[in-house]
Amino acid sequence: LVERMRAFGTTIFTEMSALAVRTGSINLGQGFPDTDGPPEMLAAAAEALRGGANQYPPLPGIPALRAKITEHEQRFWGLSRDPDTEVVVTAGATEAIAAAILGLCESGDEVVTFEPYYDSYAASITLAGAVRRTVTLRPGPQGRYVFDEAELRAAFGPRTRLVLLNSPHNPTGKVFTRAELTLIAELCQEFDAYAVTDEVYEHLVFTDAAEPHTPLATLPGMRERTLRISSAGKTFSCTGWKVGWATGPRELVSTVQRVKQFLTFVNAGPLQPAVAVALGLPDTYFTEFRATLQARRDRLVAGLTEAGFVVQPSEGTYFVTTDITPLGGTDGADFCRELPARCGVVAVPTQVFYDHKDEGRHLIRFAFCKREEVIDEAARRLAKI
Amino acid sequence: LVERMRAFGTTIFTEMSALAVRTGSINLGQGFPDTDGPPEMLAAAAEALRGGANQYPPLPGIPALRAKITEHEQRFWGLSRDPDTEVVVTAGATEAIAAAILGLCESGDEVVTFEPYYDSYAASITLAGAVRRTVTLRPGPQGRYVFDEAELRAAFGPRTRLVLLNSPHNPTGKVFTRAELTLIAELCQEFDAYAVTDEVYEHLVFTDAAEPHTPLATLPGMRERTLRISSAGKTFSCTGWKVGWATGPRELVSTVQRVKQFLTFVNAGPLQPAVAVALGLPDTYFTEFRATLQARRDRLVAGLTEAGFVVQPSEGTYFVTTDITPLGGTDGADFCRELPARCGVVAVPTQVFYDHKDEGRHLIRFAFCKREEVIDEAARRLAKI
Ligand SMILES: CSCCC(=O)C(=O)O
Ligand SMILES: CSCCC(=O)C(=O)O
Repeated sequence: LVERMRAFGTTIFTEMSALAVRTGSINLGQGFPDTDGPPEMLAAAAEALRGGANQYPPLPGIPALRAKITEHEQRFWGLSRDPDTEVVVTAGATEAIAAAILGLCESGDEVVTFEPYYDSYAASITLAGAVRRTVTLRPGPQGRYVFDEAELRAAFGPRTRLVLLNSPHNPTGKVFTRAELTLIAELCQEFDAYAVTDEVYEHLVFTDAAEPHTPLATLPGMRERTLRISSAGKTFSCTGWKVGWATGPRELVSTVQRVKQFLTFVNAGPLQPAVAVALGLPDTYFTEFRATLQARRDRLVAGLTEAGFVVQPSEGTYFVTTDITPLGGTDGADFCRELPARCGVVAVPTQVFYDHKDEGRHLIRFAFCKREEVIDEAARRLAKI
Repeated sequence: LVERMRAFGTTIFTEMSALAVRTGSINLGQGFPDTDGPPEMLAAAAEALRGGANQYPPLPGIPALRAKITEHEQRFWGLSRDPDTEVVVTAGATEAIAAAILGLCESGDEVVTFEPYYDSYAASITLAGAVRRTVTLRPGPQGRYVFDEAELRAAFGPRTRLVLLNSPHNPTGKVFTRAELTLIAELCQEFDAYAVTDEVYEHLVFTDAAEPHTPLATLPGMRERTLRISSAGKTFSCTGWKVGWATGPRELVSTVQRVKQFLTFVNAGPLQPAVAVALGLPDTYFTEFRATLQARRDRLVAGLTEAGFVVQPSEGTYFVTTDITPLGGTDGADFCRELPARCGVVAVPTQVFYDHKDEGRHLIRFAFCKREEVIDEAARRLAKI
């Protein structure tokens, strides 16, 4: 393995899911649902398999899917795009992020990110030979994660190429506020940087969040410089399909496309028409999906609180973060490694998502995208520790 | 787009397939079949969609698929592997190639390739900051493509990291002989280089080929230093599924896995079980598949010869290369751009796969992986020029 990549082992998700399988534990580590997505979508995939959608789709994705991606973006976020030049379908959000960074960053360019960060961010930045400038999110008033304005400003400089922003944010469950986004937008413009936004949890912002989700691209001056990334996996409970997309100004979308054509070329031929169907579902699908996940969050939070964890507020995503200090834990990695033997539950230590490990040493993340009986059983098991 | 990638436009396949759609031409450009793969495979995919295979598969691929990949490799090529550590499932061969090169090549390392080459090779090498050393394949006795031994030797040097070999070879249809492979193997060992072999056409070597297909990994001393790449797309007529794999010694497979986890993470959840079924089909499937394609090759070759092309021998793959000189053509790119208007057929200029454009200026490639009536209609149209 090349030197620059040696710091990156096997992702924590893989390690922890393997541990769950090996120990027969309930897996609240890796974020994937244990129920299937909308039946209309599954039926459309079966139909596409039978209907000869098994050969290479066009490089930017099939026209029907690109059309639905733009309709969906218009319906929910008021952004209007040309489906022929401002959308590209990717192998999940991960490929879109990798292609964007590999396509935009010259060696030595800087990428501003927030920690904790999804682990592929750091790896993609490193693969491109770029440098990450990491701003720490820390619990503020009422436990909501916030960042320090001066720290953010200090992360920008003449070599800043782009900001990589994830909101709703994994693993904290933070939803960036308009005021926070405005500051980010101002700095992007001041330093002539692009923004790449990972919004895969765009439909998972709970009704008690401080604010609804705002795509950074909708802020003044940002549409021209933002590549917006999302995917079907989380919204339609099909994480294994790996159908994602990037939307934005033509030049940015073309950059993603010109790199991604050499990473995977295309993917998911027979699944693309099905995701098109899912994106066209009525508003009620999205509202009910959110309500279901919110109820699951509440159920898990109650169980974790009962078990003695300090539970940090989760405004969105599949995840909730907890502090293990009251349970006598000091290192989340050790704690998560022992948890299966102690009670048959798997969680993920969030320290692996920090450059400054001390900021997250005592934190572990639980996924609540599971059936209620699974959450209840996990809560019963956790109560024993 | 970063500077190093600016030389790579949109792939020729995309450009030519778009041209085919726009002009309503018969598309003998991009290599994809116009019939579906084995019904057992399609039924298994439908079953997996219903059966809850819609979430993230494990990072290296589902165990059932890894088991069948190793069984298949044992059955056809006599290679035995540990399915747990010596196999990784990828988003097609393309992702395996990208991950291998990004994972193995430090900036400035050299990669020996043969031209004409599949276009993603050059792009992946460039993305890694590596340098390609290209050896030219030229028509030799009876038109079979050969390379010059001295030229190959001269391409190796102290910075050689790996040889990237494609056999059966796209676009020429050449199948590397044991003597040629032996020379490559000796040089790999002499210069302590790895080999990465793209064998996606492993089942498409016709009965009149000079020799059957020999995986480089089966030569003495090569197993330990070869990463063997293949995929389901070509063998099972499901190019849009993008299920590929890499097999080899544990360290090489782990290198691919550690990079690919950040390119796509995983892919094709519900399609992986179906490919496992396909790989387990009896020998008759593979024999009949090859016979079908061989008959299609013969049909297209007859039509092209009739139309006045000089047809070069194709021993394998989906493709046959032709010389346009007798038809008054001098530049294959111009010729292919005009062909749809002249007769409603699309082909691909092979010059785009050369570093030394002059070597391939007069050559164009046709795909014969199409139904017989489509080939016959194409032949009728081409007869008019
Ligand atoms: C790469 S698997 C990750 C799934 C996920 O998004 C998470 O668990 O954070
Ligand atoms: C990237 S599409 C290429 C399909 C193929 O293998 C070819 O046409 O050469």
